[in-house]
Amino acid sequence: MDVRIINPFLEAAQNVINTMAMIETKVGKPYIKKDSSSLGDVSGIIGITGDASGSFSITFTESCIKAIVSNMLGMKVTELNDDVKDAVGELTNMICGDARRRLEEQGIKLVGAIPTIIAGKGHSITHMAKGPILAVPFETPNGPFVIELALDSGNN
Amino acid sequence: MDVRIINPFLEAAQNVINTMAMIETKVGKPYIKKDSSSLGDVSGIIGITGDASGSFSITFTESCIKAIVSNMLGMKVTELNDDVKDAVGELTNMICGDARRRLEEQGIKLVGAIPTIIAGKGHSITHMAKGPILAVPFETPNGPFVIELALDSGNN
Repeated sequence: MDVRIINPFLEAAQNVINTMAMIETKVGKPYIKKDSSSLGDVSGIIGITGDASGSFSITFTESCIKAIVSNMLGMKVTELNDDVKDAVGELTNMICGDARRRLEEQGIKLVGAIPTIIAGKGHSITHMAKGPILAVPFETPNGPFVIELALDSGNN
Repeated sequence: MDVRIINPFLEAAQNVINTMAMIETKVGKPYIKKDSSSLGDVSGIIGITGDASGSFSITFTESCIKAIVSNMLGMKVTELNDDVKDAVGELTNMICGDARRRLEEQGIKLVGAIPTIIAGKGHSITHMAKGPILAVPFETPNGPFVIELALDSGNN
């Protein structure tokens, strides 16, 4: 699997968060994740099948996701309640869907499952796919988030 | 989606944990999960596509998974390290695979993605599938674990 496969997810994350929450994000340097250390407070995870099999995740710090969901809902969000979890599920779905459309234009067909949302202060995520785990950190005015993609080598 | 679809997962969980760790599990009463409250310390999550789309998870308390992995590895495990996370990934894969084989005999074809492992004291999991979230609690001599299955209504 070409590591450039992360780019459509990166563009999709920027596009979706900008569109849904009107928040500009600054992309950090993509890296290959060696351990399960990127800790966060809320994550959306989605299983991927199709031309490759694996998982995509997006992990937010509490301050970051509160600002994003406050903008999405047009009201100040003060705790990680069900509204926030629903919004993280929605964002995860939209980012994965947007990335899949971009990849399909390149002839790569991935199928997304239904997302799962994890809430828990400082949890870690470990992807089990055999390929490298690609991570991209983002900065927002209210704190960071990170996207991660792990795929088994497929046909592409 | 027929709620009896949980049964193959229930049988698979018992079979895999008994086979891999020689630990007898006692099945509790299955229920429909209304919130994201089943808290645990380590979870394996796997996305599902095919005749239905959704997610399967298995969430262990720390004492429970330490006992299981100690038996699997033949050495006492004292912390939630990478060995434990790998073992949870392996168990999640095996349970899902075993359940899928059982379902295929009933004419239901599901495809499993690659599992993701979550570690974090008392994290919660929220499944976003539109169908009911089916949960089954299990008891082991070293503490409980719970399996959860959420699928969008498919063809079956």
